[in-house]
Amino acid sequence: MKKIAIDAMGGENAPQAIVEAALQALPELGDKELLLFGDEKQLKALVPSDKLGNGIEIIPTTEVILDEDEPVKAIRTKKDASMVVAARYVKEGKADALLSLGNTGALLSCGIFIIGRMKGVARPGLMPTLPALNSSTGFNMLDVGANAQSKPEYLVKWAQMANAYVEKIKGIDHPRVALLNNGAEYDKGDDLHKESYQLLKETDLNFIGNIEGNELLQGKADIVVTDGFTGNASLKTLEGTTRTLLSLLKSSLLENGIIAKLGALMIKNALQDMRSKFDVDVYGGAVLLGLEHPVVKGHGNSKKRTIYYTIKQVSDILDKDLIANFKIALGEGENHD
Amino acid sequence: MKKIAIDAMGGENAPQAIVEAALQALPELGDKELLLFGDEKQLKALVPSDKLGNGIEIIPTTEVILDEDEPVKAIRTKKDASMVVAARYVKEGKADALLSLGNTGALLSCGIFIIGRMKGVARPGLMPTLPALNSSTGFNMLDVGANAQSKPEYLVKWAQMANAYVEKIKGIDHPRVALLNNGAEYDKGDDLHKESYQLLKETDLNFIGNIEGNELLQGKADIVVTDGFTGNASLKTLEGTTRTLLSLLKSSLLENGIIAKLGALMIKNALQDMRSKFDVDVYGGAVLLGLEHPVVKGHGNSKKRTIYYTIKQVSDILDKDLIANFKIALGEGENHD
Repeated sequence: MKKIAIDAMGGENAPQAIVEAALQALPELGDKELLLFGDEKQLKALVPSDKLGNGIEIIPTTEVILDEDEPVKAIRTKKDASMVVAARYVKEGKADALLSLGNTGALLSCGIFIIGRMKGVARPGLMPTLPALNSSTGFNMLDVGANAQSKPEYLVKWAQMANAYVEKIKGIDHPRVALLNNGAEYDKGDDLHKESYQLLKETDLNFIGNIEGNELLQGKADIVVTDGFTGNASLKTLEGTTRTLLSLLKSSLLENGIIAKLGALMIKNALQDMRSKFDVDVYGGAVLLGLEHPVVKGHGNSKKRTIYYTIKQVSDILDKDLIANFKIALGEGENHD
Repeated sequence: MKKIAIDAMGGENAPQAIVEAALQALPELGDKELLLFGDEKQLKALVPSDKLGNGIEIIPTTEVILDEDEPVKAIRTKKDASMVVAARYVKEGKADALLSLGNTGALLSCGIFIIGRMKGVARPGLMPTLPALNSSTGFNMLDVGANAQSKPEYLVKWAQMANAYVEKIKGIDHPRVALLNNGAEYDKGDDLHKESYQLLKETDLNFIGNIEGNELLQGKADIVVTDGFTGNASLKTLEGTTRTLLSLLKSSLLENGIIAKLGALMIKNALQDMRSKFDVDVYGGAVLLGLEHPVVKGHGNSKKRTIYYTIKQVSDILDKDLIANFKIALGEGENHD
């Protein structure tokens, strides 16, 4: 029976939203078991007693890694943190995958220093699924910030693993892979991106060339590969712009008199429709590619609905044996068998 | 009498919108003269005869640099292109500033190879003004793509020139200067950004530290300095996200029945109010900082209203003698006098 280790103390809505999502997802996961790591008293109050030992297990921990903690230091000093103990369970084979909504840097450190990197992968990459126009599957982008400094070879391995992910999890054959760059032509970019372009062209990936920041949401690619620094700036700009525009729209509707307020009520369905076209909840969390076991990072502000989909995503990753497929994609599959 | 050289053939709405904007701006520019470079027949048809030789002059050219032209090659082979001839006028002292809505790379090449770099500046930086929440002045960001490969020293000089621009043109004392980075702490980023942070801290600029992509529109900084590659990706992501969300909103309002359509009419004022809060037209064009004379790049899709504000911006740059102020900011002022 496969077990998913869930850091129940990470994120803004922990532990309640996480436990509720776990209870909702449980019946849909086959015979998997969910291990909840965190404060025993809080978790026991949230889990119905008939579920305990019956699909859900609580692993008591006494510490929590905070968002403001320095990652490497935190995982070394807070040895009984929910995230750290959960990672250790995965390392020791007592669980098969790790899910956390906590400190991204700390989770990355747990991945590298506790769970361990996959053979042939120098640096793991962080890959969220993002929405795109006229697309129900969105697109995957990596690395969005696990690495401040990247090398062309990293980008190629990230693309190869993302390719396996999109093929297996999304069922898309020959996903279109693009490189985030500052122009369309092959010779665009700095040395890192020029070289990455050449290396990507030499792979057997369906590499469609460069893509620019303004094209990201247009659904032109299934996978956008980027160095971690640019990917981080681009993703955060995307998130910030979306949040700013929506809050600006909201305040404009509220501050422009009764007619605008009434109008706002009348466009409610349309706005809901708009939101459903860009429903990021269903895409789950960001996957850390390149580790010996699946590690998924949920957004810190995720609510129950998103966490539910993220747990299902982790379950799917286990069902489809993604790690074995990553190894095959990297040409490391045979050496391990 | 100061003269502004305007490439009347660049951008999607050339030459009509450009000529109309020039005619609108002319009475408000003091005694400046506007030189319009482009197809003689087209321009003559657009300029009233009483304005010719009376504030407006037409300089006939026979070629146009297209967006798809390779920049350096284009300025070498299309010697009679409107942009190239306009740049030559500035170089030769027959005009004082250059404005174009055409090919950005070609304009950059005109700046570097024809007009020439300012002493002490290795690479010019491209700086647009962008909107920010609760701010009538927005913020300035550079470099947004004149350089694929940047060095820490470039960023410092761009920040120093941007500082002079914001002080003189916007009248903001001690503008807040931030570095676009992948985290708030001083040790964040790759080597380029770590080193840039240290160098910026050593200047007498009001350096407020790092800013992340999601904070750009929040008005936390007056100047955001970034390497040209990241700045390009971030700006284009910002533009693309804005365009995508607004078009999604529009289509959702149209596709959700009569109530939503009626509601859309009722929120029209609110949307206008929202647009006015984020009115980028009035900010004019992007300035190429670090050249011997002012060069301003208007967005290719600018309409008459934006071009009008951009011409006024160029006029203001001349009135406030920005180039001399840049030289002082870079510590090169005295050497030139």
